[in-house]
Amino acid sequence: MVQRRPSQHARTTRRIAEIDEPSAAVWDVVARVDSDELATAAALLHNLHPADQADALAALDHRDRRRLLDRIDSHTLAELLPFLTPEELEHVAPDVALPQLTAALDESPAQLGADVLHALPRSDAEIVLGRLPKAGLVEPLLEHDDESAGGIMAPELMVLNPHLSTEQALNVLRAAMPAPAVRDTVYIVDTEGVLLGSIALHALVFAAPLTALRDLMEPVGPTVTTDMDQEDALKIFQRYALHALPVLDRDGRLVGVTTSDDLLDIAQQEATEDMYRLVGLVDDEALTAPVTTALRRRLPWLLLNLATAFAAAAVVAAFESTLARIAALAIFLPIIAGQGGNAGMQVTTLAVRAMALGEFDRHFTRIVLPREVMIGIASGIAFGLLVGVVGWLWQDNPWLGVAVGAAMLGTMIVAGLFGLSIPIVLRALGADPALAASIFVTTATDMLGFLFFLGLAALLIDRIA
Amino acid sequence: MVQRRPSQHARTTRRIAEIDEPSAAVWDVVARVDSDELATAAALLHNLHPADQADALAALDHRDRRRLLDRIDSHTLAELLPFLTPEELEHVAPDVALPQLTAALDESPAQLGADVLHALPRSDAEIVLGRLPKAGLVEPLLEHDDESAGGIMAPELMVLNPHLSTEQALNVLRAAMPAPAVRDTVYIVDTEGVLLGSIALHALVFAAPLTALRDLMEPVGPTVTTDMDQEDALKIFQRYALHALPVLDRDGRLVGVTTSDDLLDIAQQEATEDMYRLVGLVDDEALTAPVTTALRRRLPWLLLNLATAFAAAAVVAAFESTLARIAALAIFLPIIAGQGGNAGMQVTTLAVRAMALGEFDRHFTRIVLPREVMIGIASGIAFGLLVGVVGWLWQDNPWLGVAVGAAMLGTMIVAGLFGLSIPIVLRALGADPALAASIFVTTATDMLGFLFFLGLAALLIDRIA
Repeated sequence: MVQRRPSQHARTTRRIAEIDEPSAAVWDVVARVDSDELATAAALLHNLHPADQADALAALDHRDRRRLLDRIDSHTLAELLPFLTPEELEHVAPDVALPQLTAALDESPAQLGADVLHALPRSDAEIVLGRLPKAGLVEPLLEHDDESAGGIMAPELMVLNPHLSTEQALNVLRAAMPAPAVRDTVYIVDTEGVLLGSIALHALVFAAPLTALRDLMEPVGPTVTTDMDQEDALKIFQRYALHALPVLDRDGRLVGVTTSDDLLDIAQQEATEDMYRLVGLVDDEALTAPVTTALRRRLPWLLLNLATAFAAAAVVAAFESTLARIAALAIFLPIIAGQGGNAGMQVTTLAVRAMALGEFDRHFTRIVLPREVMIGIASGIAFGLLVGVVGWLWQDNPWLGVAVGAAMLGTMIVAGLFGLSIPIVLRALGADPALAASIFVTTATDMLGFLFFLGLAALLIDRIA
Repeated sequence: MVQRRPSQHARTTRRIAEIDEPSAAVWDVVARVDSDELATAAALLHNLHPADQADALAALDHRDRRRLLDRIDSHTLAELLPFLTPEELEHVAPDVALPQLTAALDESPAQLGADVLHALPRSDAEIVLGRLPKAGLVEPLLEHDDESAGGIMAPELMVLNPHLSTEQALNVLRAAMPAPAVRDTVYIVDTEGVLLGSIALHALVFAAPLTALRDLMEPVGPTVTTDMDQEDALKIFQRYALHALPVLDRDGRLVGVTTSDDLLDIAQQEATEDMYRLVGLVDDEALTAPVTTALRRRLPWLLLNLATAFAAAAVVAAFESTLARIAALAIFLPIIAGQGGNAGMQVTTLAVRAMALGEFDRHFTRIVLPREVMIGIASGIAFGLLVGVVGWLWQDNPWLGVAVGAAMLGTMIVAGLFGLSIPIVLRALGADPALAASIFVTTATDMLGFLFFLGLAALLIDRIA
């Protein structure tokens, strides 16, 4: 999308911001708008790469953004819109004058049009759609779920019928749309629009002029339907190492395609979701969201975490009389909890990631479960011995060593079992396997670890005290 | 790569395994080899999608794999090789007869050739390279670091000089290599090979025949050099929403290109690394690695975790006399530790992910640091009050409530500060910001949380006891 019809001169002089460094040029634009030098700000903006232009627009407040937008032509706007994140789009899109926005969307991919319309108030979206010449391409996209293959597909395709010759085909393509989403593949459909196969543009161009497309056509490979979850589409895309994945409607008609560019974004988004959920964060939390938003999102999970921490505390409370006789037992609680929680989270992380990459089920029953049990037992024995000896020597009491060592062994085995089974159970319940998994895993290892340790200590109390 | 020159009949009848389900067809092949029905196994294999063929080969042991490979032609081998993971390639590549492997690599992309040669014993790699007709393309790739842009680039490009007309250009391309890595873009270089610009194949095909390429050429956009880290290349690719990213040598000569297909794999690999490192797992641990491998990799980190747990335990030990007077204090240790650790890990996860996506530095000084301090204070006040009141009512002692509530406030603030600063410090030291961050963060919150709580309790001991 970046490369569409740039003016060559502007292109070569555009400054590209360093990755991982704040772009001084972006902040310069913002500062000029702040100090009312709008003409200078607009001129500076015009020389930036569209990715940086988008950053500058996103950094302004609503009033300043509207003033700067007044000085931007719709072509510049069309170039920068793809670089706004979905959250930035929600702030920026409503600030654009509707005629300017309509003109920009008319030269943008339909998928971007759908994203922008989603970001507008309903009445404004209807006005833009009513005036948009390519509404026919954009409108069907609005029906699909945001996180489905239909929600991420691009409908701009080079589509031909199989009876054409290559020469006819090239003439048809010459007259067709200027910016297909997949620039290297022509899709072949029958008169109903049902996908029959595809031809690399490369092969089409270099074939003899009178060859029938039917004879050049490669058969249909993997496809998805519009309602498939984007994460499953990503798995198919990666498993079959595709360049582009055709999206079909229920009748097998080709309605769009998802490309690796789209799916790269999806992969990053899904990985972020899993990482966040593992520690009880809500998916779309960003480091720059307002404090109140962050609190509203994080507090429920921290509250759940607190409730489960009280459950672990209740186990300790049940042994208060044992602790009253041997206060030194309390010293070992953080060791049991820390070691069990970390071992459990390692297994959970492995399982969640394998599920996300579609690598989990294939090996699970044969290899993974017995393996994790063995790792739990082996590391439990190693750490049980180590912690037992340290506990014995530190507190000069062999029976305390026995209690803490045996509890450590038990905790490590429990950590492996719960670390693996919690994501499996969450998935079986239809929840995300990563959903606050750390909270559940550490609670399980804390409670059972404390129960093993304090229970053993209570049994051995006459020897330890 | 999947779509290269398949026989059409075989293509349409090939079975595609369900995503997320073990493919019965794959296990069928494995079972036939097991029971010595090699001809049937080879016939079944031939009807599978190359992705599934790769799975079947990877699932066999060395002896069985060699027997099945004897019945596979080099073209089938070339089709399935791209679907083996790097670890699978290490097992499979040495089992292939060298002439068969050489023939397969000759019809494969050079980048795959480099990967396969890396997986072979040195002497075998030299034999293959000596016989490989396209050694000239493969050999330069072997020099680059695996995780650099040079290590993931493809050298097969459509490259032309700017003085050609479009008609001449198409004639040159017709005679050139059949499978360029980027099928939709022609790169324009000078006589030294220095990149001057690019033209969409699409634009070239549909331009007037006598147009000079110079006049169609779009200027050079973002590029990377061969020695750039693949993760930085990924950030540039995503920031500028590119389709393909040219890779230049130190003199600005175009030597290859990385595409979104490669970078999608890199993005997944980097996300996996970060998720693993956050919990102290080594990058390339897989759920199916041998138990001894897993132990060798996980034990050092669990040992570090244990050492840090002992540091937290030492804080508790320092207050043993306080705990001896009031055993109920031990009950609140898991609550302090659990809440602080979770809050800290939330911030660490946000920071590590933002760093990976290149979104961290731009907003950091202005927004992130003050925001996390505020979130820590606000949630610390909320949970301090809540835990204080619960502690007071549970143990019927308002001063215990004061101690645990104030300690909770302090712990939450510390969690925000350490959760944010530990990845920053790790990165400043040149380490991965995610490196075992959970271990450091939870240790810091445990130690300081216990110190706050037991220290306050010791000060207030005459009122609490």
